Amino acid sequence: MIYTAIMGHGVVGSGVAEILLGHNSLINQKIKDEIDVKYILDLRDFDGLPYSDKFIKDFEIIANDDEVKIVVEVMGGVNPAYDFVKRCLMAGKSVVTSNKELVAAKGAELLAIANEKNVNFLFEASVGGGIPILRPIAQCLAANEITEIKGILNGTTNYILNKMIVDNMDFDSALSLAQEMGFAEKNPAADIEGHDACRKVCILASLAFGKHVYPEQVKTEGITNITLTDVEYADSFGCAIKLIGSAKKLDNGKITATVKPMLVSRSHILSDVDGVFNAIMVTGDAVGDVMFYGKGAGKMPTASAVVADVIDCAKHLHARKYVDWSEGSTDYVVCPDEKVRLYVYIQSDNYDMICQQFTTLFSDNTWHIKNDFKKEIAFITNEDYESTLMEKINSIKADTVKVMHTLF
Amino acid sequence: MIYTAIMGHGVVGSGVAEILLGHNSLINQKIKDEIDVKYILDLRDFDGLPYSDKFIKDFEIIANDDEVKIVVEVMGGVNPAYDFVKRCLMAGKSVVTSNKELVAAKGAELLAIANEKNVNFLFEASVGGGIPILRPIAQCLAANEITEIKGILNGTTNYILNKMIVDNMDFDSALSLAQEMGFAEKNPAADIEGHDACRKVCILASLAFGKHVYPEQVKTEGITNITLTDVEYADSFGCAIKLIGSAKKLDNGKITATVKPMLVSRSHILSDVDGVFNAIMVTGDAVGDVMFYGKGAGKMPTASAVVADVIDCAKHLHARKYVDWSEGSTDYVVCPDEKVRLYVYIQSDNYDMICQQFTTLFSDNTWHIKNDFKKEIAFITNEDYESTLMEKINSIKADTVKVMHTLF
Repeated sequence: MIYTAIMGHGVVGSGVAEILLGHNSLINQKIKDEIDVKYILDLRDFDGLPYSDKFIKDFEIIANDDEVKIVVEVMGGVNPAYDFVKRCLMAGKSVVTSNKELVAAKGAELLAIANEKNVNFLFEASVGGGIPILRPIAQCLAANEITEIKGILNGTTNYILNKMIVDNMDFDSALSLAQEMGFAEKNPAADIEGHDACRKVCILASLAFGKHVYPEQVKTEGITNITLTDVEYADSFGCAIKLIGSAKKLDNGKITATVKPMLVSRSHILSDVDGVFNAIMVTGDAVGDVMFYGKGAGKMPTASAVVADVIDCAKHLHARKYVDWSEGSTDYVVCPDEKVRLYVYIQSDNYDMICQQFTTLFSDNTWHIKNDFKKEIAFITNEDYESTLMEKINSIKADTVKVMHTLF
Repeated sequence: MIYTAIMGHGVVGSGVAEILLGHNSLINQKIKDEIDVKYILDLRDFDGLPYSDKFIKDFEIIANDDEVKIVVEVMGGVNPAYDFVKRCLMAGKSVVTSNKELVAAKGAELLAIANEKNVNFLFEASVGGGIPILRPIAQCLAANEITEIKGILNGTTNYILNKMIVDNMDFDSALSLAQEMGFAEKNPAADIEGHDACRKVCILASLAFGKHVYPEQVKTEGITNITLTDVEYADSFGCAIKLIGSAKKLDNGKITATVKPMLVSRSHILSDVDGVFNAIMVTGDAVGDVMFYGKGAGKMPTASAVVADVIDCAKHLHARKYVDWSEGSTDYVVCPDEKVRLYVYIQSDNYDMICQQFTTLFSDNTWHIKNDFKKEIAFITNEDYESTLMEKINSIKADTVKVMHTLF
């Protein structure tokens, strides 16, 4: 018999309890042993559940029970999750978590403790919900040198952008709808400002490139400034606006990592990822581009990924450690000046002036659309160094200047 | 030091040798040990390679060398690969293969031997080339009951269909181009008649549902009968024609498995998979739909998947066995009468008659296109039991009647 404990009985935690207790025979068959949930830690009361007798309010009971070999942390947030997870690992228990904030902030440290104690610290559910992504990167692509990871890592923002694109809704209405549908939280900041995607970029980049990337090292921009005007111009240029998280290895051993809205060409498969779906594209030197696609959130998808990690722990109580990366460093993540094509939107009551500036600064063959009535110009620059392009763009005197990166 | 042997030095085999010998330090770092290729078995001579001294022509040398712990089989075909692999497993060596024909024909038997001998038999590269798919199904989706798998499993046919759709090429020209580009073999039968996709369906279904599915149990239809006319009508119905391999669990514990061209709605993400790319969609009861996408063939993608399995073997010389399924049975794979929507094309010089039959047999609201000039009608039926629809369709007297399944 292998005993587990679940810390947190929120959306994901209750899903984990349901699968571990409901799919029990399927799981026991896979691990060729029996698994049971001994405790569920939550400060709230949950009466009337078939497993109400398992609830406890004191973490010490889990920490001090040597029978508990696997602990599931699905509380969310860095504190007290960090303390609890650390103590479980130190006590020789394997830990499975879906907590991206925790892994993005403390992953390297917790992995080091897990390694030292010869137990597992697994977190497949922290990126892409139920989509298999971390284990495939670590194991299936092990013969590759991974050079780049990019993708749509947040379903809420993708849903909002999709509503703007397909149904011509403005940002606020699309956000309200997402909240009504349960796809966005009451306080949507973590999603729409890109922090959620940023944490996932940290985890993916740390795993793929072997060194911890911290959230504050990732240049992060959300989607709150995207207007219907941008969406329409993007469409005219054959693109869809998507919030793209990406990390890339540079020749000097450093990496670059960003989260930002981009104009993605409709010929790129990432532009076809609609609604609350996520898609993560991994580039390896041997395999080329591979993509993983699915619903990136939700109770049961996420819970099923947590339980898959629990099964892996149960089968290998001491042996796994396929994920591993070292502590990061301050100069590891950089913003190199690379060749790019930018989307630029300029608007000014002094329309003649911006037209003239546009003609002077950008060659005739720049792909552009002018709207005399609205006194605005939108264009996609030719490829050039970002610094060169930004110097030109910054010299434009207009009431509104907006710049976005592109993915062709 | 862990010694390996490679059987076969064709396209994939030479890629495996290059990665194992070229990425050696990366790999040694991952396995925390040293790996070396001791022998390469091939009847042909390969002089002038940096590793020419490793070539042997006699399988017995590998079979009898206890130092060789991992054998890579990349010869292709069932014989003599089957004999060689069996003897390696019996001798206590782990085997990694990319040979889908072998696994589809003999998987259950070879897995049983591997289990008995406590060694690994891994074949990630046999489906989807470098796309991680078998290990994610077996491990990451372990908490799910998998209900269905469907996808574009053959890049050659997808390339041909794509050329027909996008460039309006007829089948023969598209096939010739694919051969010129190196995407199709001189003898393209295995691809265009669906046998390659069929073998992959066997492997995926066996793994997902736990019981061996043999190629002869999968109803298989290729793309040789697809005409430009079909492609154009499909387009008018908002669909792209794709060769879809699928397997589905039925309520009675049996399964259904097919390979056939289908009209796939443009709103379905599988319709966006173009060129030589593969995409495999897996449906789990908890996770919903997840999709794996990438180039499904090619020297380095496939070789990298083989090497990832070698790394896994090297890390766990006796401990893995995450893939496992039992022998199949004759009544396990069935063709149930399910509700479907069919694409139907009818053409006849007696145009009035087919128009009348169409009106009599199919209600007014059937989605249809008539071409008076070509004397043909194409339509998508409303949803009904396949037997009911086929009875009606079979009663149509026309010069040409063609039927395809749809995926909306």
